Amino acid sequence: MKINKAVITAAGSGQRNLPLQTLVDRDGQTKSALTILLEEVLQTGIEEIGLVICPGDKDAFQAAAGAHVKRLRFIEQAEPLGYGHAILRAHAVTGTEPFLLLVGDHLYVAQGSKPCAKQLVEIAEAESCSVSAVQATHESKLPYYGTVGGRRLPGRAGLYQVEQVIEKPTPTVAEQKLIVPGLRAGHYLCFFGMHVLTGSVMDTLQELISQTGVPRGVHLSAALAKTAERERYLASELQGRRYDIGLKYGLLNAQLAIALSGPDRDEVLTHLVELLAQK
Amino acid sequence: MKINKAVITAAGSGQRNLPLQTLVDRDGQTKSALTILLEEVLQTGIEEIGLVICPGDKDAFQAAAGAHVKRLRFIEQAEPLGYGHAILRAHAVTGTEPFLLLVGDHLYVAQGSKPCAKQLVEIAEAESCSVSAVQATHESKLPYYGTVGGRRLPGRAGLYQVEQVIEKPTPTVAEQKLIVPGLRAGHYLCFFGMHVLTGSVMDTLQELISQTGVPRGVHLSAALAKTAERERYLASELQGRRYDIGLKYGLLNAQLAIALSGPDRDEVLTHLVELLAQK
Repeated sequence: MKINKAVITAAGSGQRNLPLQTLVDRDGQTKSALTILLEEVLQTGIEEIGLVICPGDKDAFQAAAGAHVKRLRFIEQAEPLGYGHAILRAHAVTGTEPFLLLVGDHLYVAQGSKPCAKQLVEIAEAESCSVSAVQATHESKLPYYGTVGGRRLPGRAGLYQVEQVIEKPTPTVAEQKLIVPGLRAGHYLCFFGMHVLTGSVMDTLQELISQTGVPRGVHLSAALAKTAERERYLASELQGRRYDIGLKYGLLNAQLAIALSGPDRDEVLTHLVELLAQK
Repeated sequence: MKINKAVITAAGSGQRNLPLQTLVDRDGQTKSALTILLEEVLQTGIEEIGLVICPGDKDAFQAAAGAHVKRLRFIEQAEPLGYGHAILRAHAVTGTEPFLLLVGDHLYVAQGSKPCAKQLVEIAEAESCSVSAVQATHESKLPYYGTVGGRRLPGRAGLYQVEQVIEKPTPTVAEQKLIVPGLRAGHYLCFFGMHVLTGSVMDTLQELISQTGVPRGVHLSAALAKTAERERYLASELQGRRYDIGLKYGLLNAQLAIALSGPDRDEVLTHLVELLAQK
């Protein structure tokens, strides 16, 4: 299986300005958050990216994409009908092909030199199935994430066969249905904001939306729960961390994580010590 | 002298996106850099602000100004003809009145509870003359700033009578003309990005531009050098620091300084320690 396409959703109401924010990337260059995210994708070898935006945002996103704008296909989500609907809007770009799916309000900092998206795409291409990136997450943060249950693949570090997917489970539901043997107590496998999905997931989303007739309520997690029943579907812990730049201090934390992981680490630490000494 | 008006310049080519960046303010609210700057001005009691922008930027700045948009008068600088010309474009807003002048790419963090702009406006109103905020700055940073020479006013901490103004002086020129007795060796009084100017400064700018016929070369510092010859003109060290958000890591440094000076200090420090422990 070869992944040639990506979809980034950036039409959420609290999300629209985030890709336009400016950060200094690990390479020391000042870029928009969108450019950093596009480079995360392009480093996998993917060349075509569907970007789901709100009507009216195209000019700003084009400017923020810089030289990468030629890789983009803009897709408007005319009404705020939820995440499942936003992904399905990109069907025209992905067709029946597998695709890398990212949210527009997260940035990723890999532990080594291989970007998180590249780690994920390599696993999905080798396994020839849908793979969601996950991160072991304390139960106190379950209200923010889609969460998977399943079992560790024997002899494969950080790789899991997914059996259940529940969007924002309560701790009680998580304890009953989502415990994964081998994780630290009170920890669950929560989505990282990055998936490789086969073309059948688009069909499942379409099926769920047609069934309910109300796209707004259909979340990706519901389609992935069906995917886990119907086909081989894995979850993978990547070597890196996600930063939700839509949270309070999310941009600050992402910028610090990026800067402290790169060659500017000493410069930034020096400034920090100066700032702390001022008080 | 009462200051009723302010001018913010934000038409510089590298500067246009900066006021649209998002930060968490000292009060814990997430705001655009423009909103933080407008609130710095409005806390002085000033109610009308002329904002000098590039043609085409009005919509984005209106959105970034939020509820404060009704205090703004947008002024377009159609061509990039320099800082002096940008200020003079706001003449229609200021008329013959004194005004507070700020650059759109700096944020200010006061040491106490009184904002830097309010400190400056109070001094200018009490002294009834033009006053530039300055910061004692190491000579290695002279290439970035307008710099003043003069003498300390007896018995007035941090207040100086300005006798010379030179834009971005070389260390040699600074040593010959701008040494201010009482500062640490190798330090000069550099502009802080914040001035209160009398109406006559607009006339002087107009006079200089008419003389040269080429507005591009006329910097505010040239007009202020003439002001120092013609009228009483002071410089004041404020209780606070300026952060140029146009520099590399400028946004990061401003955000850290703001966060560490407010009630979220512990939250941000905790996250920092976590980040540093990850390595």
